[in-house]
Amino acid sequence: MDVLSERRFPIGKLKLLATSRSAGKQVKFNNEILTIEETKPDSFQGVDIALFAGGSASKEFAQDAVKAGAIVIDNSNNFRMDPSVPLVVPEVNPEDVKWHNGIIANPNCSTIQMAVVLKPLHDAAGISRVVVSTYQAVSGAGAEAIEELREQSRDILAGKEANPQVFPHQIAFNVIPHLDVFLENDYTKEEMKMVNETKKILGDDTVAVTATTVRAPVVNGHSEAINVQLKNELLPDDARKLLAKSPGILVIDTPKNNEYPLPVAANGRDEVFVGRIRRDETVEFGLNLWVVADNLRKGAATNAVQIAELLTKGML
Amino acid sequence: MDVLSERRFPIGKLKLLATSRSAGKQVKFNNEILTIEETKPDSFQGVDIALFAGGSASKEFAQDAVKAGAIVIDNSNNFRMDPSVPLVVPEVNPEDVKWHNGIIANPNCSTIQMAVVLKPLHDAAGISRVVVSTYQAVSGAGAEAIEELREQSRDILAGKEANPQVFPHQIAFNVIPHLDVFLENDYTKEEMKMVNETKKILGDDTVAVTATTVRAPVVNGHSEAINVQLKNELLPDDARKLLAKSPGILVIDTPKNNEYPLPVAANGRDEVFVGRIRRDETVEFGLNLWVVADNLRKGAATNAVQIAELLTKGML
Repeated sequence: MDVLSERRFPIGKLKLLATSRSAGKQVKFNNEILTIEETKPDSFQGVDIALFAGGSASKEFAQDAVKAGAIVIDNSNNFRMDPSVPLVVPEVNPEDVKWHNGIIANPNCSTIQMAVVLKPLHDAAGISRVVVSTYQAVSGAGAEAIEELREQSRDILAGKEANPQVFPHQIAFNVIPHLDVFLENDYTKEEMKMVNETKKILGDDTVAVTATTVRAPVVNGHSEAINVQLKNELLPDDARKLLAKSPGILVIDTPKNNEYPLPVAANGRDEVFVGRIRRDETVEFGLNLWVVADNLRKGAATNAVQIAELLTKGML
Repeated sequence: MDVLSERRFPIGKLKLLATSRSAGKQVKFNNEILTIEETKPDSFQGVDIALFAGGSASKEFAQDAVKAGAIVIDNSNNFRMDPSVPLVVPEVNPEDVKWHNGIIANPNCSTIQMAVVLKPLHDAAGISRVVVSTYQAVSGAGAEAIEELREQSRDILAGKEANPQVFPHQIAFNVIPHLDVFLENDYTKEEMKMVNETKKILGDDTVAVTATTVRAPVVNGHSEAINVQLKNELLPDDARKLLAKSPGILVIDTPKNNEYPLPVAANGRDEVFVGRIRRDETVEFGLNLWVVADNLRKGAATNAVQIAELLTKGML
């Protein structure tokens, strides 16, 4: 709702839907007081665009919304790899919204910020392989996760034991190499999202990605150490220039002044921040990059609203 | 001193040397009270093994110690890449202590834990390339750094601003892709230590390493996401078995039980912990690993005392 308001998204009427638990609550939007309603199969009559957040919501109601004539933009993992559903990062593959069949999927947060940066590099020099390690904020796991980090930090500073509830282990003053569930191949689902969604967004199955995703005791803002093997030469200076003029990207890369992207600085921003751009001498054409973004904004809400903006432009 | 005591290192007399600031202070070792003396050029008469910590100490006094007949084990960066000085991780290249000329260098903390794990893989299948991203604890930057993390965490939890003194930016609830100074090639000195020291310890200049080193708000215990390209096939199960029987390594790799190495669990331990071992399908023979160790112990004190143990064995 903040992003819709800030970007002055053209809204005739905003309808807020949630579970029965939240129904009846009042929320301010711009200068209006809106009341949350319980989501029901017939809630979507007259709705043009339905923004879904949360995995169970779209599983239960996305088809109802589509039947009622709404276009669903879904932030969950339910439809992302469905071949009949476009997976869209507006800076990367905006044209993919055109072939939707009622549902457009919003990618995984850590994938979005990586795809925004990989796209110009791929167009310029061809990406053959990516090795990525993430430093992911707790906000991606919800409000209770933020509270858990704060509470555990307080407890440990006071000499008490941590009491993990949301995360499988202590998250305060620790890092945990485990997001989402483990799969048959011993990768986590989060890691395989980065592998598979990146190919779909870039529209190129030959882009090989291997990932290690790690939760860090950061409140908000995901960071990624990305190693890229290219097919053709792209020098760091040229990569810097190319990325600086690419949509949605801010290059912060002045090491001598200690200037590089930081999660606390990306918090509350809509751009993807890139720095520490340097040549990887261990392969013919290699680059190392450090990429940071606000996972709740560009990694979720902002990207979803940008998709909605593409739709309104198409409707005009 | 804790490590010397715990490992029952054979000591005739322990002499404690420091700057004039600490001289006169009394410290307990086993059941004895020892008085710290100011280091002077003639302090090393009768000393067999001199353990140096801190960069300025060995720059000023290492040669005096050598002249007095002591063998210096130096934890600083001063002599590590000197071709006349062995750089030793006892699990990896113990035989290198033999060719010392009075000084033996203790490698960088993040390099030690990686080398312990790479060595058996290199012997079994040949390593061609390593991409490593680190998650490094603040303890590596000293006691003031630990206090800074605690104080900043308290301040931020209380709604105050962070006040960075030791680190270039806020470290609490943040990650900083910057350890040590930046070099001409835009890598940090810490990153190039991992590149160059690894080759020297493994005794193989063909092992190509590229690194991104990152400070995380962890009190103690460095973590590393390591991607390894091998020359020959080594399946994850075989790597697990191989590493489990290799010296100094504990394999913790049962994802279905949420068991993998964690810095809070490695804190206070001397082993190098390895988990998240899985095949990297993006190259012919690739592995991903997650490696954690206590950077003050295996990354510094324990490794230095292990080198001293090699010397005492040689002296017997």
